[in-house]
Amino acid sequence: MQMPESPIRKLVPFAEAAKRKGVKVYHLNIGQPDIHTPEIALQAIRNFDHQVIEYSHSAGNESYRRKLADYYAVRGIGIEYTDLMITTGGSEAITFALNSICDLGDEVIVPEPFYANYNGFAISAGVKVVPVFSSIETGFALPDIEEFESWITPRTRAIIICNPGNPTGYLYSREELHKLRDLCLKHDLFLIADEVYREFAYDGAKPMSILNLEGMDEHAIVIDSVSKRYSMCGVRIGALISRNKKLMATALKFAQARLSPPTLGQVAAEAALDTPQSYFDQVIAEYTERRNILVDGLNSIEGVYCPKPKGAFYCVARLPVRNAEDFARWLLAEFSHEGYTVMVAPANGFYATPHKGENEVRLAYVLKAEDLRHSVEILRKALSIYPGRV
Amino acid sequence: MQMPESPIRKLVPFAEAAKRKGVKVYHLNIGQPDIHTPEIALQAIRNFDHQVIEYSHSAGNESYRRKLADYYAVRGIGIEYTDLMITTGGSEAITFALNSICDLGDEVIVPEPFYANYNGFAISAGVKVVPVFSSIETGFALPDIEEFESWITPRTRAIIICNPGNPTGYLYSREELHKLRDLCLKHDLFLIADEVYREFAYDGAKPMSILNLEGMDEHAIVIDSVSKRYSMCGVRIGALISRNKKLMATALKFAQARLSPPTLGQVAAEAALDTPQSYFDQVIAEYTERRNILVDGLNSIEGVYCPKPKGAFYCVARLPVRNAEDFARWLLAEFSHEGYTVMVAPANGFYATPHKGENEVRLAYVLKAEDLRHSVEILRKALSIYPGRV
Ligand SMILES: Cc1ncc(COP(=O)(O)O)c(C=O)c1O
Ligand SMILES: Cc1ncc(COP(=O)(O)O)c(C=O)c1O
Repeated sequence: MQMPESPIRKLVPFAEAAKRKGVKVYHLNIGQPDIHTPEIALQAIRNFDHQVIEYSHSAGNESYRRKLADYYAVRGIGIEYTDLMITTGGSEAITFALNSICDLGDEVIVPEPFYANYNGFAISAGVKVVPVFSSIETGFALPDIEEFESWITPRTRAIIICNPGNPTGYLYSREELHKLRDLCLKHDLFLIADEVYREFAYDGAKPMSILNLEGMDEHAIVIDSVSKRYSMCGVRIGALISRNKKLMATALKFAQARLSPPTLGQVAAEAALDTPQSYFDQVIAEYTERRNILVDGLNSIEGVYCPKPKGAFYCVARLPVRNAEDFARWLLAEFSHEGYTVMVAPANGFYATPHKGENEVRLAYVLKAEDLRHSVEILRKALSIYPGRV
Repeated sequence: MQMPESPIRKLVPFAEAAKRKGVKVYHLNIGQPDIHTPEIALQAIRNFDHQVIEYSHSAGNESYRRKLADYYAVRGIGIEYTDLMITTGGSEAITFALNSICDLGDEVIVPEPFYANYNGFAISAGVKVVPVFSSIETGFALPDIEEFESWITPRTRAIIICNPGNPTGYLYSREELHKLRDLCLKHDLFLIADEVYREFAYDGAKPMSILNLEGMDEHAIVIDSVSKRYSMCGVRIGALISRNKKLMATALKFAQARLSPPTLGQVAAEAALDTPQSYFDQVIAEYTERRNILVDGLNSIEGVYCPKPKGAFYCVARLPVRNAEDFARWLLAEFSHEGYTVMVAPANGFYATPHKGENEVRLAYVLKAEDLRHSVEILRKALSIYPGRV
């Protein structure tokens, strides 16, 4: 099968070359948070006292699943522990969801720009991604529901959203989610919501889970992950959640084929459920400051436009350049300011429609405040002398 | 997509019912070893001192890959660390291999009986499994190479073997592997060898890796795993190995889509590479004894025939019954001997051709000697009174 190159990886050789030349590169291109993993999770790993590291149940350890169901209950989401299955990262949950609901050649509708790896998972599953354009002008709000409806065919199986969004940071409103629900029920489609950034919401906003949409028990599928929530991407623990029993029974067969999610990761993830609220309060305060520095900074650069997102830790900015990928490459290959430069992800790779987002970049605000401030100044400088500026 | 029920899982509800009735069930049906994980690996986990559990490189940590290349070198297998990619168990390596070399609708030829989860991986990849029958009469030796050749079509991409074999325990000879090589080169097919049981070879036998088949650099793909080698199935660490650069570049894109193999598992697996040879000597001695008890015991039961395997820790036995699945269910649902019974895996599920292996079962000898001895006596008793006996 042919797989597209990830938009985040394309420029890596240029970043490596820059580093070899002694240039310091700020990585605004990737979402690997620098936040510490909760101590309670690290401690659980250090206390691991089994003598055999065994397979767990294919759907995950029951103790973890029960405790995870409690986590949702506290957040007002009522599910049984049997409605959730532990997966190898949110990544695997997406694959299981597609494999379980689609046959080869089926279609899923996704508002673009979207998390680029959805393409890879869809290709692996033999499923076609049908994009619906959302615009930076509206801050990437939900496109008109008629737009979605116009793309529905007999092969359409699901609509996929990411909420809060990567790469947009957009947080869907209750009204937008209700519109999606009505459309899914009307056409008997699944609604898959990737909610891995649930905890990352700012300005007092509270993301609504599609598990709380009335009437959607048979249609709602949630993708979750502990990767970003507890800054422990490497444990590879996620979850597939749905009240649709038939779907979960099918997904279990895919889970059984690959035997078990990681046992050590589950130990860390189960312990992490006891992370105190103060950890999140601090993290949210930190990300709010970082977002403000980055987004306000970007908007203070002439010709740059960046909607202020309410969730996740990414933003998409429109730059005064013809081609953001050329600019990003130039930043690494030809530019540096007092020994520093910045790596950004061209947004084009997050769109499925050719030529969309060609003057946009995605930036992750996972660096500390000071480095973000510095990064903004580097970008300001770079844009002021970039030959391809428009 | 439709997934078949795993042959190992089908009977689980009956086993649970038996346990609820107070019957003790010996599990000869699954391959979860009881051997301890090497202390050095457990220690590495307890000493984990990072403050963030980060994603690793999508192909695995370089330090682990380099050290793993050394492991192969010591075993006479010369590969660069860039010829191998760390995967989430051998399971994921199989999926990556199929996705990388096949388009939807392509075919792979596999001698049956075979590891039943190949079916699941093939279905996920949209690939058709074409079985070639191997017989218990020959101890599951390689079928005539003309048999393989007769099934090759323009859509055939690969032959898949498992060596040492699950479920058969069969160990392919150098001559058999040479025949496969010649056929693959003649028709430009990949040869995928699942070598996850490499360490488990008895009676002085030494499995030959297909990586040592001359002329196969562009055609040989090896699946590996630390699950059984170090009795740490739960770390979910395997590897995909090939000297074919184009293949590895494609596989890397699939690896990047799912971001990273488990970080903690890699810590354990890297440390495990320093496991002393004495650990393996002990394990091999233990499994040799277990094999002898089980296989010799089975052959001492009237009407039972079980070839003595030289590798892995499974055997396939032919029973004097019409239908081994009925018998296995009867063992759990209706039989017990002094409070004990035995759970076996009907071998039929390891064959792709309907009705093959219907009077065969797979047994794993992962229990201690005493329990295996007891299990044989229970089976002897059960077969002596089973109503469906032939
Ligand atoms: C939107 C989104 N979904 C899913 C994932 C998958 O993460 P993981 O597999 O680590 O849970 C990511 C990771 O960046 C993401 O951004
Ligand atoms: C033949 C064979 N291949 C691959 C695997 C996959 O194991 P894992 O994914 O744990 O590496 C197994 C596990 O039982 C196996 O028996």
